Amino acid sequence: MTLSVRFSDRVGRGGSSPISYMMEQGVANPGIISLAAGLVDQESLPVEEVRGCVERVLAEPRRGRRALQYGTTDGDLEIRQRLVEHLAALEGCLPRDLSLSPDRLIVGTGSQQLLYLVGEVLLDPGDIVLLGVPTYFVYMGALESLGARIVPIPTDEEGMIPEALDEALARIEQSRELERVKFIYDVSYFNNPTGLCLSSRRRQAIVDLAWRWSKTHRIFIVEDAAYRELRYRGEDIPSMLRFDDKGETVLYAGTFSKPFAPGLKTGYLVTPHSLRTALIQQKGHHDFGSSNFVQHLLAEALVSGEYHRHLGMLRELYRRKLEVTLSAIGEQFAPFGERVQWTVPDGGLYVWVRLPSSIPTSAGGDFFTRCLAVGVLVVPGEYCYPQSMPEIPRGYFRLSFGFQDIPKIEEGVARLGKVLREMM
Amino acid sequence: MTLSVRFSDRVGRGGSSPISYMMEQGVANPGIISLAAGLVDQESLPVEEVRGCVERVLAEPRRGRRALQYGTTDGDLEIRQRLVEHLAALEGCLPRDLSLSPDRLIVGTGSQQLLYLVGEVLLDPGDIVLLGVPTYFVYMGALESLGARIVPIPTDEEGMIPEALDEALARIEQSRELERVKFIYDVSYFNNPTGLCLSSRRRQAIVDLAWRWSKTHRIFIVEDAAYRELRYRGEDIPSMLRFDDKGETVLYAGTFSKPFAPGLKTGYLVTPHSLRTALIQQKGHHDFGSSNFVQHLLAEALVSGEYHRHLGMLRELYRRKLEVTLSAIGEQFAPFGERVQWTVPDGGLYVWVRLPSSIPTSAGGDFFTRCLAVGVLVVPGEYCYPQSMPEIPRGYFRLSFGFQDIPKIEEGVARLGKVLREMM
Repeated sequence: MTLSVRFSDRVGRGGSSPISYMMEQGVANPGIISLAAGLVDQESLPVEEVRGCVERVLAEPRRGRRALQYGTTDGDLEIRQRLVEHLAALEGCLPRDLSLSPDRLIVGTGSQQLLYLVGEVLLDPGDIVLLGVPTYFVYMGALESLGARIVPIPTDEEGMIPEALDEALARIEQSRELERVKFIYDVSYFNNPTGLCLSSRRRQAIVDLAWRWSKTHRIFIVEDAAYRELRYRGEDIPSMLRFDDKGETVLYAGTFSKPFAPGLKTGYLVTPHSLRTALIQQKGHHDFGSSNFVQHLLAEALVSGEYHRHLGMLRELYRRKLEVTLSAIGEQFAPFGERVQWTVPDGGLYVWVRLPSSIPTSAGGDFFTRCLAVGVLVVPGEYCYPQSMPEIPRGYFRLSFGFQDIPKIEEGVARLGKVLREMM
Repeated sequence: MTLSVRFSDRVGRGGSSPISYMMEQGVANPGIISLAAGLVDQESLPVEEVRGCVERVLAEPRRGRRALQYGTTDGDLEIRQRLVEHLAALEGCLPRDLSLSPDRLIVGTGSQQLLYLVGEVLLDPGDIVLLGVPTYFVYMGALESLGARIVPIPTDEEGMIPEALDEALARIEQSRELERVKFIYDVSYFNNPTGLCLSSRRRQAIVDLAWRWSKTHRIFIVEDAAYRELRYRGEDIPSMLRFDDKGETVLYAGTFSKPFAPGLKTGYLVTPHSLRTALIQQKGHHDFGSSNFVQHLLAEALVSGEYHRHLGMLRELYRRKLEVTLSAIGEQFAPFGERVQWTVPDGGLYVWVRLPSSIPTSAGGDFFTRCLAVGVLVVPGEYCYPQSMPEIPRGYFRLSFGFQDIPKIEEGVARLGKVLREMM
């Protein structure tokens, strides 16, 4: 007889990961074209750039040894300084215009770790997070594992709808639960899964709402900017940090995974001072600091210009992939007229497709199974909504054009077209 | 007026970190010789070895790109395979004698992250962890932040005393709380802070006790083997994995930080199958995988022999440092006869010193302040006991010989001698 294990309550809240399920499907179906994985383009990974940076960090023994010793829990000071400059440059302003200084930055094991830490320091079971849906399912799963109640806010082409956010907060206040509201989360650039941005106008409105509804305690905004630098068309939009005059409301999570290399697994968070101590204390419990070596190598990539050179190349490459994706979709899905719709992003890695509601995209359903049969995998849209939502839209799917090469993207979209022609 | 922040309950349980306090003391007192920091020897850090490994990983573009892409949550398969071989070699047996396979291994951001994850998947507030005291204060702080009740088990020269563990479990059963007991934690090799090992005989006894007291559910043993490979004298002792015939009871945490380079921040955990899914799910919420690049470089260090060559050099270097430390202590403290005692470790980075109980070593106390005044810093022993313990021994301190060079160690110990001559 095997003895049982008494797990903590948080394990029970965990739920199984959609990612694991999707990966199993990929493994179980060799030859499949996965337009599901959020992996980045394989051929473009910066092997030479990283080699050069490591070479320079380790060439001078004193510097090399510093990189191989323990770092600090909040991250190496040099990379935090470089990130302050980097963010100010992105915003087209000076660090002081953003009330930005290295002590507002924390470096972590990908932005995911930092987002998780934010959840940990703010959320007890039953606390409320509002987020624009559809949204990034990995973080939603993490929030659910922390026992958060997720209040979905509808979005349109301009992202989260401020009026809907305002109404949701009013309802929460009426039910005397405003004190349980801890933060508003949004993937504000090229949203995973829609590929759309929160418009500049709405950024101002949402920061104002967070400020106005902070009646008894601070309600924060957590801006997930993972895809910001992967813009292929149009002008950058200021982050919500720009609208947060006092630096008290907005947390901003960025990463080196999408614009440089996921294998380095390094992200960063700009935080209001009020959360800094708690976040670092909690990170101290987790790991008392992410890889110091990798931070030194990334600081070198920022200083030497390798980061920006690589990003420039990456933007050209993904711009072409996005064009091919949209053109293939246009060709394959045009025959269905308005019954099939899709977003037209200016950046990021995803296109979000809506089928008629008569064709649910659920894992294991008819559409999903037919896709597997012809050898193509996409992410069922329902993963991108909280499971507690009364009516989860069933006709959506997410298509990633990041990982596959152009012929595979074209073939994958053609296979989707084949399935739809059979079903419609 | 600044609005308040509503933190989660876990922040309130966090407590301030002794490490932060000690680091502040170091910064505030320039010229101080810190025999407090758990940092490793600076001059010996493997700059050339890491450079060679990175060079080889990135030389072949396909391999390089694989290292720079996302990895998997449980860690790269190759490093897990190499770790299986590495552990079997340490035990002097075959992997199958340990029921060991790559799917029992998880790679993390240092062993600290893995230890924290174990706490997360097993502990709800009020659950019980038994641990030999004095112990590693960073993990104790993490356990306290998870709301664990810590039951201290006395130790002697052979480590945790099995009879005392048995009695503690009997008392817990009598108070009908056996179901709250989740695991037993021990730094079983060159304990932080005592430098002493759990004897082979007691390893068997403790595994037997965990097995016997697993009456209604599995009680695990978490063996923290961070210092195992830093042995300078005598023969290695088998891990508790060797006594866990079915592989159901013992978790074993190892690290590359102490024997290779802390800046790479990579550790690993051997886990029973029963915990694997929950641990990976939880790690998925944290970060869905530690740096893949660093894992590839460490796999290369294991395969190429760089790891073992470096470790051989490191052992010689620390052996000499330990000798110098013990000889300086002998010289400086001998005049006090039996009133001052210290451990004589065969490895690790620490010596544990006992002063007369009339000289408490507490931070801010007379001894501590006099040490700062003459420019030497050690870790007050009280940090190494749970704060909930009724009578925390007050006359101990931990002295680390890892970081400072030999002249600094000699000077630091001389300064300690000076303080003691003043006070005794």
